[in-house]
Amino acid sequence: MSKFEAHNLDLDQIPQVVHARLTRFLDARADEVASIGGPVSDAVDYLRNFVLNGGKRIRPLYVWAGFVAAHDRNNSLESIEAVLDAAASLEFIQACALIHDDIIDSSDTRRGFPTVHRAVETFHAENNMEGDSGHFGEAVAILAGDMALVWAEDMLQDSGLSAEALHRARDAWRGMRTEVIGGQLLDIYLEAQASESVELANAVNRFKTAAYTIERPLHLGASIGGADDELIDALRSYGHDIGIAFQLRDDLLGVFGDPTITGKPAGDDIREGKRTVLLALALKSADDDNPEAAATIRASVGKVTDPSEIVRIAELIRATGAEEKVEQKITELTASGLAHLEIDSIPQDIREQLRSLAIRATERRM
Amino acid sequence: MSKFEAHNLDLDQIPQVVHARLTRFLDARADEVASIGGPVSDAVDYLRNFVLNGGKRIRPLYVWAGFVAAHDRNNSLESIEAVLDAAASLEFIQACALIHDDIIDSSDTRRGFPTVHRAVETFHAENNMEGDSGHFGEAVAILAGDMALVWAEDMLQDSGLSAEALHRARDAWRGMRTEVIGGQLLDIYLEAQASESVELANAVNRFKTAAYTIERPLHLGASIGGADDELIDALRSYGHDIGIAFQLRDDLLGVFGDPTITGKPAGDDIREGKRTVLLALALKSADDDNPEAAATIRASVGKVTDPSEIVRIAELIRATGAEEKVEQKITELTASGLAHLEIDSIPQDIREQLRSLAIRATERRM
Repeated sequence: MSKFEAHNLDLDQIPQVVHARLTRFLDARADEVASIGGPVSDAVDYLRNFVLNGGKRIRPLYVWAGFVAAHDRNNSLESIEAVLDAAASLEFIQACALIHDDIIDSSDTRRGFPTVHRAVETFHAENNMEGDSGHFGEAVAILAGDMALVWAEDMLQDSGLSAEALHRARDAWRGMRTEVIGGQLLDIYLEAQASESVELANAVNRFKTAAYTIERPLHLGASIGGADDELIDALRSYGHDIGIAFQLRDDLLGVFGDPTITGKPAGDDIREGKRTVLLALALKSADDDNPEAAATIRASVGKVTDPSEIVRIAELIRATGAEEKVEQKITELTASGLAHLEIDSIPQDIREQLRSLAIRATERRM
Repeated sequence: MSKFEAHNLDLDQIPQVVHARLTRFLDARADEVASIGGPVSDAVDYLRNFVLNGGKRIRPLYVWAGFVAAHDRNNSLESIEAVLDAAASLEFIQACALIHDDIIDSSDTRRGFPTVHRAVETFHAENNMEGDSGHFGEAVAILAGDMALVWAEDMLQDSGLSAEALHRARDAWRGMRTEVIGGQLLDIYLEAQASESVELANAVNRFKTAAYTIERPLHLGASIGGADDELIDALRSYGHDIGIAFQLRDDLLGVFGDPTITGKPAGDDIREGKRTVLLALALKSADDDNPEAAATIRASVGKVTDPSEIVRIAELIRATGAEEKVEQKITELTASGLAHLEIDSIPQDIREQLRSLAIRATERRM
């Protein structure tokens, strides 16, 4: 991958730099935490391990890309360390989102390790502590997630960004947090309502994934860099389209993905009962063309656990033609997302970077 | 109660003003929430009702007192609406703390109404929704608490305070949030460990109650008002002492309180197994003087449910002399707390207000 002009920081280096900034932040809070009481340090260590073993750092990466896209033209006076801290702070929001989601989804593992609530549950049980181990695990995980959320705010506010940059960042920051929590609320309501609405499934993709993962991080970085409205609109539109395409790809993989490549059981979304656009489209088609298949899919999603049954439901979904419709949508969104980058103010090398990130997000097999 | 000099806003009016500011904030977010999806508005309504039916507004009240204490001397240029929004924002932190605590404590009611997770559970069950009603209730309550936490940040950051005031507010704001979450983590660890440490029980009182409820709100308001270090130190020291005394009073009421006055079952803390300073002192004394009583208390706290048994354990605790020790501590802390106010820079009327708040907090019977 080619180098970014600014500061010789290559996009590929961002994950490593983010790790270093997060480590620095966590180290700086350690004494304060320990002064509250030894057990608090133990609890916060779960958060520390979670954050430092974190994934692909995709949100900080988009913050950086947004900043560099704006920065090249405006000669931002912000300190690079401050911008990187602002970018890294999104990993704490993500930590809260995942730690709390893992409670909500009753997940046992995350990134190959026990989820926080399960790890604490095990600690409780192994030490014969008072009360119910499962409940204690969830309690500590709820609070560890809360701590992550307030530390995200602290890492941004104390980053060293100028007051002007912090002010410019407000729209993106405010929108992003309400959207991801709102999107997650919508997601669990749709599941509980066994919703078949394409529109609401689209809204989950838009707010829980696209806005939170790509659109708002780009918006945040570009705002910090002092971007004008035209550039912000272009980057947000790209983020909206590519973000939704990214989630649609995820939905296809959740039903048809190869478990040896995805690392998840085949048809995981069918077992979980996720109310995806794919499922809503499949039910719509089947109602018209094959009511018996529609009835079988309806009765099975969120209820079947037998792998061969799950494969059968996946085949019924495929036979409705919904898979092609979603593939078509991904193609369209990728094209429209990339078209938004065709404005003069986006430097050619940034456009190339964003293009390759988009391809990576929408064509992946895992 | 006498009027504050500044802006003719009496302390007694603060709860009403806070209610109006919170209503205004919630109204302003309603469209954004609805645009994510109808069910999100339903979920956020639980938060809205919780916040607007909220209690005594003690934290905003202390923010205001801190601001006025500083303001009278410095002629702050901050807008009064902005200061009131900053004060009111603490009610969202409190909403998160209580909604999440109610999950952690498995509480069914709060302020005479069903807790958020129970209300959502009932809604789920009555509408025959998919999945487990109890689990859904907790999931929505976790996310509603998260929303409250990010909205606290938004209400402060978008209050209209000057960049300088926001910057001055950082120490108090950063400290307060980490301390209350850390204090709550410590509390649940001590319960799970059946801790008998007086020191750690003191730390819970200090961070979960004193810092969060009095010390940091005063610090926040004074910082916004541009207070100097001497005034901030005096107010924080008052808040530290009065806040701990307040919690010690709460601990006494939790074991010896009259249920017809407190509104809670007699000896609630004994049944819950709270690891209070009172309990730690009682066990310490009993170990020396009455090992049999010590063994009975140890075996019963957090385990007995029978009311007559609970009364018997309360009497055993009283017989250790721990009650007098705690009363003595309350008297000392109230005196030392009030003594911190004896500096010239605190206006006489503010000193009187803070004195009457302190008496109300430490001499109450409910």
